[in-house]
Amino acid sequence: MPLTCRFLPGWLRNYRQEQLGADLLAGLVVTVLVIPQSLAYALLAGLPPQVGLYVSILPVIAYALLGSSMVQSVGPVAITAIMTYAVLSPLAAPGSPEYIVLAAALSLVSGVMLLACGAMRLGFLSQLLSRPVISGFISGSAILIIVSQMKHLLGLSLNGANAWQLLVDLLRLLPGSHWPTLAIGMAALLTLVFVRGGLTGALVRLGVSIGKATLIIRLMPLLVVLLATVVVIALDLDRRQGVAVVGTVVEGLPGFEFVFPAFDTLKMLIVPAAVMALIGMVQGITLAQTMAIKRRERIDANAELLGLGGANVVAAFSGGMPVGGGLSRSAINLAAGAQTPLASIVSAVSMIAVVVGAAHFFARLPLAVLAATIVMAAYTMIDIRGLRQAWAYDRADGLAWLGTAGGVLVLGLETGIGLGVVLSMGTLLLRASTPHIAVIGRIPGSEHFRNVERHEVQTIPGVLFLRIDESLFFGNLGAVELRLNQALEQSSGIRHLVLVMSAVNRMDATAVEVLAEVNRDLAERNTRLHLAEVKGPVQDRLLHSELWASLSGEVFLSANEAFEKLGGQLE
Amino acid sequence: MPLTCRFLPGWLRNYRQEQLGADLLAGLVVTVLVIPQSLAYALLAGLPPQVGLYVSILPVIAYALLGSSMVQSVGPVAITAIMTYAVLSPLAAPGSPEYIVLAAALSLVSGVMLLACGAMRLGFLSQLLSRPVISGFISGSAILIIVSQMKHLLGLSLNGANAWQLLVDLLRLLPGSHWPTLAIGMAALLTLVFVRGGLTGALVRLGVSIGKATLIIRLMPLLVVLLATVVVIALDLDRRQGVAVVGTVVEGLPGFEFVFPAFDTLKMLIVPAAVMALIGMVQGITLAQTMAIKRRERIDANAELLGLGGANVVAAFSGGMPVGGGLSRSAINLAAGAQTPLASIVSAVSMIAVVVGAAHFFARLPLAVLAATIVMAAYTMIDIRGLRQAWAYDRADGLAWLGTAGGVLVLGLETGIGLGVVLSMGTLLLRASTPHIAVIGRIPGSEHFRNVERHEVQTIPGVLFLRIDESLFFGNLGAVELRLNQALEQSSGIRHLVLVMSAVNRMDATAVEVLAEVNRDLAERNTRLHLAEVKGPVQDRLLHSELWASLSGEVFLSANEAFEKLGGQLE
Repeated sequence: MPLTCRFLPGWLRNYRQEQLGADLLAGLVVTVLVIPQSLAYALLAGLPPQVGLYVSILPVIAYALLGSSMVQSVGPVAITAIMTYAVLSPLAAPGSPEYIVLAAALSLVSGVMLLACGAMRLGFLSQLLSRPVISGFISGSAILIIVSQMKHLLGLSLNGANAWQLLVDLLRLLPGSHWPTLAIGMAALLTLVFVRGGLTGALVRLGVSIGKATLIIRLMPLLVVLLATVVVIALDLDRRQGVAVVGTVVEGLPGFEFVFPAFDTLKMLIVPAAVMALIGMVQGITLAQTMAIKRRERIDANAELLGLGGANVVAAFSGGMPVGGGLSRSAINLAAGAQTPLASIVSAVSMIAVVVGAAHFFARLPLAVLAATIVMAAYTMIDIRGLRQAWAYDRADGLAWLGTAGGVLVLGLETGIGLGVVLSMGTLLLRASTPHIAVIGRIPGSEHFRNVERHEVQTIPGVLFLRIDESLFFGNLGAVELRLNQALEQSSGIRHLVLVMSAVNRMDATAVEVLAEVNRDLAERNTRLHLAEVKGPVQDRLLHSELWASLSGEVFLSANEAFEKLGGQLE
Repeated sequence: MPLTCRFLPGWLRNYRQEQLGADLLAGLVVTVLVIPQSLAYALLAGLPPQVGLYVSILPVIAYALLGSSMVQSVGPVAITAIMTYAVLSPLAAPGSPEYIVLAAALSLVSGVMLLACGAMRLGFLSQLLSRPVISGFISGSAILIIVSQMKHLLGLSLNGANAWQLLVDLLRLLPGSHWPTLAIGMAALLTLVFVRGGLTGALVRLGVSIGKATLIIRLMPLLVVLLATVVVIALDLDRRQGVAVVGTVVEGLPGFEFVFPAFDTLKMLIVPAAVMALIGMVQGITLAQTMAIKRRERIDANAELLGLGGANVVAAFSGGMPVGGGLSRSAINLAAGAQTPLASIVSAVSMIAVVVGAAHFFARLPLAVLAATIVMAAYTMIDIRGLRQAWAYDRADGLAWLGTAGGVLVLGLETGIGLGVVLSMGTLLLRASTPHIAVIGRIPGSEHFRNVERHEVQTIPGVLFLRIDESLFFGNLGAVELRLNQALEQSSGIRHLVLVMSAVNRMDATAVEVLAEVNRDLAERNTRLHLAEVKGPVQDRLLHSELWASLSGEVFLSANEAFEKLGGQLE
């Protein structure tokens, strides 16, 4: 292989000609369809609308070259947009030059963090959050997004630090809504609701394939936006009625300007950038994985981190808005038939044409209609089904969902996700700290051992078989010791205690120490401690421990071997 | 039972007359032997020496009435003393009236926290820390204590915020040591080292019983202290040579005065008090448990919390020094033959006599000798063996030890313990995030299934048996999915995938969702997903899940049942 080729991504080296047509078409479709959301998310982030288009160019190419997913599309997304707004709006006036500098810095810092995590192969960090916590976070953020768009839908100016205050303000000012804005916004919203609710079914009944139906549905926001803009221009609604519109959309490509912020500013952005990187990581990798499984492909979590990190670093220098893996962008890409990341590169290149030639058309697009598309997208992100399932399965998981979503709404995005991490870990520890331990005996005529309380089993007088159904670690040894002592007290005259370790997958140093103490104490009471069915990895570690050397009893391969041998001794 | 009796602790209601003699004797022995350490730890905490005696009265009685351990002795201890000094010395001059007020407030807040934890039955919180982390924390604190005593041993005045700076300062000022102080301190230290190193063996060889030998060893610090005081008085070393002595020890009982500190001060003390409560909890409960196991008794973690909390609250009003369960105090109590907490009550009552009548004698006790007893006690707390064992067993546990001890020395006590908690959890998650998964087959002529890579086993073409050796939770599903896909790719034409769940002790909501997705994806590829050997508690939860309803395959009781049935279908 020539040297230069080694730096090309795998998909490009092995590109097959028959994929080219599909990729070209998909790329063009994506460019057109993502225009409204790109403008909308830039506004949501508190940035000039054209920035959303800018970061649909170079960051997209960076991800295509570095990432591992064949079909994920990276660009401006709702979650990072609302996070950008939440983090930066207390620091500078949205849309101001300082604000734009801060947004670029935020994108840079979180991009560098993602790159570093990728380089250090820390992809497993994306597993720090449980599904209920992720679902709760996204749902809470979606509600925050919806509430934040109400001012555009109603033509009001609202202020409030969190969702609750915004809602109070909203109810107070509601009667003063701007009716032409409300009318056009509601019309757009209702159209989108109808599209979402009934159109797919109707199209499929008319004989349209699912793939095509998806594309038609995805086309609707663009049509609504175009139609609304035409109406505004035709009736001069912005100038005569005061309907708020996007305003100047600067045409032309962005320069590679980047103002490096002061060190103190950077320090202030580190925690928000880390939260953004974590969320971007979780969302991007989960999304890429879901699509890869459907297409029987494999993604590499660390390559994903490099792709997302590279995209954000590049974004910092070309407009300055943080980007992420987009659910609806990727769905469009997939439905349009993309085969490889070449489709994304095509869409990036054709976006240049939009930026240079067509952006001015969106200057008179009504904000209320963009808000309607954002509200609709955010609405689909609220995962009540996820809450219901988690609640039904395990109250603790349900509470983690509610805690995270509530935290996001009341305490803000960063505190919300922090609460989520704590709740995830807390649930895990709580469950693992109360292990199930059963006294077992042998089912007559077999080699199987079962709980003495649930089955008719044989036991040997003076020999106690205990099965521990949990890995042993510092958090559950207290409970294990307690249960052990209870079992020993209940059955008097025990001379042999056999711990059946078939479900003990791991033991930490604390567990080995505690078992060594138990072994010593039992020896003082003239009771021998035996182990049975110790797993290979556990045994490998135990060989280096004090317990192994000082064990008063034997190590049996199976509970049955222990039963035969100890039963024989006592007879 | 009369109503009043219901408020008496169990040991008092069932008190047997034959225990009385032993308890009386043990109480008197403890009173005398703990005098030097009580004075020493008060000085270590930056408080007037008599405070150490004060908090050996009422707090001891509070613990005796509320706690559950029969033999644990509560009082001033080294760890809480050094923590008190570390927390309060930046806020006020040690020994000043403000300092004493702050110490009382610290004791009160941490006591209330312990009481609250006990009332809410949060005793399991004491399991938040792994043994290597506790051992590392105590070892690091012990080194800190030793370094802090060097100024008394050498007669220097050192300043430094952490152990490192203190050490640098020490080396710089070493040549200016006060030689008479150094001589008397070193003599005491060498005597104590000899006592520790050789005396027990020598005594046992002379036919002294282990119990008596222990008491004689424990008596030595008091003898050294008395002897040194006599020498100082005889040679007038304090007045003529300037050897530093304890100074005025106020005689008489403390008044019940308590100055409530300002709210801002309280707020500042909350985190340190919480750390102190956590450490006190861990130390107290571990110690009580160790002794209870030896005596075949049971302790109740929540009663322990009430006991420790009550003792600290009372301490706040009677001298103001935080207290804890003391290792050496309890060892003396045990060796002296204590049977019930009555021994502690006896020691508390006789301590009143010491405080009223004998305290002035300690005014000319040289500080260097007290420092020697503290250094010796701290030296025995350094648990290098714990580090070596943890390191040999698992590098991650060893690193947790080193990280915690290093954190205590370089970053301070609170940051050190925080680092320890993070390291404990991190190790746990890291281990659980890389589960062992094996492709298994049946050993011919048996019902046993083993790893295909390690044993000669039967397999069925088109059927894949996978055993997952770990509970499934959000942190390891990525690894499980990856391994699953690898296994499916390696063996082509798989129509049935059987997950053998014998080692899956728990599944969280995330795991159920992911398995439901795997089930769906496999169905699309014409592969059925079966489960085998699902544990009772896991199955109980799965019944409420989407996975259970949509599972494409069956749930088999045993891997063998699946093997028989699926093998039969395909033939």
